[in-house]
Amino acid sequence: MKIEAEWMRGGTSKCWVFETAHLEQTQTSPDVLLPRLFGSPDHRQIDGVGGATSTTSKAMILNRPFGGEVDVEFTFAQVGIEEAAVDWGSNCGNCSAVVGLYAIEKGWVAPDGDVTRIVTRNTNTGQIIIQRVATPSGALPIMPQAHMPGVPFPGHQVGLGFQDPAGKTTGRLLPTGSASDTITAGGTRWTVSMVDAGAPVVILRAEELGLDPERHESWFGGVELQLEILDRIRREAAVRMGLAATAGEAARAVPKVAIVAPPARSDRDSDVNVMMLSMGKPHPALAITGSIALTLAARTPGTVLNDFMGGNIHPTLRLRTPAGVIETWSEERDGSQFVGVDRTARTIASTTIHLPEDVDSTVGASFAGATN
Amino acid sequence: MKIEAEWMRGGTSKCWVFETAHLEQTQTSPDVLLPRLFGSPDHRQIDGVGGATSTTSKAMILNRPFGGEVDVEFTFAQVGIEEAAVDWGSNCGNCSAVVGLYAIEKGWVAPDGDVTRIVTRNTNTGQIIIQRVATPSGALPIMPQAHMPGVPFPGHQVGLGFQDPAGKTTGRLLPTGSASDTITAGGTRWTVSMVDAGAPVVILRAEELGLDPERHESWFGGVELQLEILDRIRREAAVRMGLAATAGEAARAVPKVAIVAPPARSDRDSDVNVMMLSMGKPHPALAITGSIALTLAARTPGTVLNDFMGGNIHPTLRLRTPAGVIETWSEERDGSQFVGVDRTARTIASTTIHLPEDVDSTVGASFAGATN
Repeated sequence: MKIEAEWMRGGTSKCWVFETAHLEQTQTSPDVLLPRLFGSPDHRQIDGVGGATSTTSKAMILNRPFGGEVDVEFTFAQVGIEEAAVDWGSNCGNCSAVVGLYAIEKGWVAPDGDVTRIVTRNTNTGQIIIQRVATPSGALPIMPQAHMPGVPFPGHQVGLGFQDPAGKTTGRLLPTGSASDTITAGGTRWTVSMVDAGAPVVILRAEELGLDPERHESWFGGVELQLEILDRIRREAAVRMGLAATAGEAARAVPKVAIVAPPARSDRDSDVNVMMLSMGKPHPALAITGSIALTLAARTPGTVLNDFMGGNIHPTLRLRTPAGVIETWSEERDGSQFVGVDRTARTIASTTIHLPEDVDSTVGASFAGATN
Repeated sequence: MKIEAEWMRGGTSKCWVFETAHLEQTQTSPDVLLPRLFGSPDHRQIDGVGGATSTTSKAMILNRPFGGEVDVEFTFAQVGIEEAAVDWGSNCGNCSAVVGLYAIEKGWVAPDGDVTRIVTRNTNTGQIIIQRVATPSGALPIMPQAHMPGVPFPGHQVGLGFQDPAGKTTGRLLPTGSASDTITAGGTRWTVSMVDAGAPVVILRAEELGLDPERHESWFGGVELQLEILDRIRREAAVRMGLAATAGEAARAVPKVAIVAPPARSDRDSDVNVMMLSMGKPHPALAITGSIALTLAARTPGTVLNDFMGGNIHPTLRLRTPAGVIETWSEERDGSQFVGVDRTARTIASTTIHLPEDVDSTVGASFAGATN
């Protein structure tokens, strides 16, 4: 048996893109089928299409809903490597960037003007994401030339607009009711902003930590040296945001921590310097969820980030990360708020995957369940 | 522009398989084209088909010669990851295993009986390799069931027979003229066999090193503890084999070192235990070149390996390696000697790779040069 799939780069991830109907034809649960196609369980994924890393063992399952305003529904699958299992628990911002491009390349959506708008819905989270794919003069460019940090080759420009992302976890953009608060940890008082958009994030000023982004060693090395106090601040913030009853019970990944500083005087390409912590370590770039929280924080008067902007509100925010400058944008439209980030995407290969016929056959019913 | 390619697993490698004519249509040198298709230079190869490891950044270029006895000529390309460069200097035994299967799947060679024989020639080394692909009842099995160490899923059985591999480096199977010799190193006299087939190898008895394969910790840990004396023996062997003028000048990789022991009493599945050193470290399995030298050593009266076989000569040799049992075979036919090893192979996906059109265009002439 054979299965059609497009192999696409979305942002800094490689994603295998399937259509629901093609997977259903196999009469096999995707919880069984995808690991086998990817070569799992095997730390090298040597007998399958998986790339043996978390950012290259990803699948997207696309579906065209009948009627309604959504052009494409998509489900993200994080395919296990050493385990023959699929994690359906979250979406991937990078892989999300392939959906609009796929829809245009397959003729699901006709290019419309210089930028084609595709309404997509992620089924893992229920999040509506409006995608804007660059189609100058009404066509995908033959030689796409858009660049982004972390990818050495160009691709198609794709804007991802997250609809009404604020308060998805706590119910409010500012869970404490204040744009900035004081947290006491390690005998010191810290001025922070606690924001819930995309994901809960606690934002600190680099200056209070004695960090200076203009001195590279201080910026990187200094964060590494203060991981313990940063974690105490983070745990205290978890309690204040209503995410944990006590600091000791705070989850390891929530809230995220962002350390911000004004841009260097010589830096005219960014509005803010940011270093993010992910699972207790400095992130090499910036998770898309984190960039959305920072974007709304920058727009909110009184946050530590809005202070850097001189209190001004711009439709775009340029974040200087360790990997380069990432630009986000926000807008109000049709009574909703959209916060977005630009990625690039490209189809690497059109493929027919050969499915060994010894995959356990299970009923298609569990397929539908897994993607809803 | 688009390029057809099959993505195949050969042994424990993943290989991208191209046809010469398809690559020539691009009018681009493969030294430029392959790195771009693979996403190099980039340590993650995130924008291309490469897998960001040495065993998954490999290409094979296949060609059907006009007339003659060779069915398929093939060129192996080790595609750089952090460098946009191709290394054409050697062949890959694992990727070699895809050639016969490809020829049958594409109809270049018709299946013939239970085992189909394909004559292949590697252009990197000039080595003729006879491939024997299992085709029970004259057809490729729909559900191939052959297994091999290091690969958790089954594939097609492929036998690789290296024609006349003896003495390729030194001119003789036994460079010293003796099946076994005594080397003095570290104040001790060691009985070794020095063999040149596939690659030059010096073979030692585990017993003389105080190693016992039946005691797992002794076998692994003991080798690690004796790397210094093993290197002294290896360097002395390099001089005796005529590979270096002095021990100090011996190359780091030549000869290879193999430590052999009789199989455990309870082990009825192997003829010999072997631990190989590669670049000064224990190898997790066994290089194909090393397995060929051991096979001819086992067939040669008087070697330390032949002693284990009770002096008998079998057409097959079962080597117990850290990754499992690898079986080799040897035969005389048509005045040549063939030494072989079985691998498994499988086509993972049939693909059309999308080639971004900003690849430097260079003249096709350099393509022909690179593959000869």
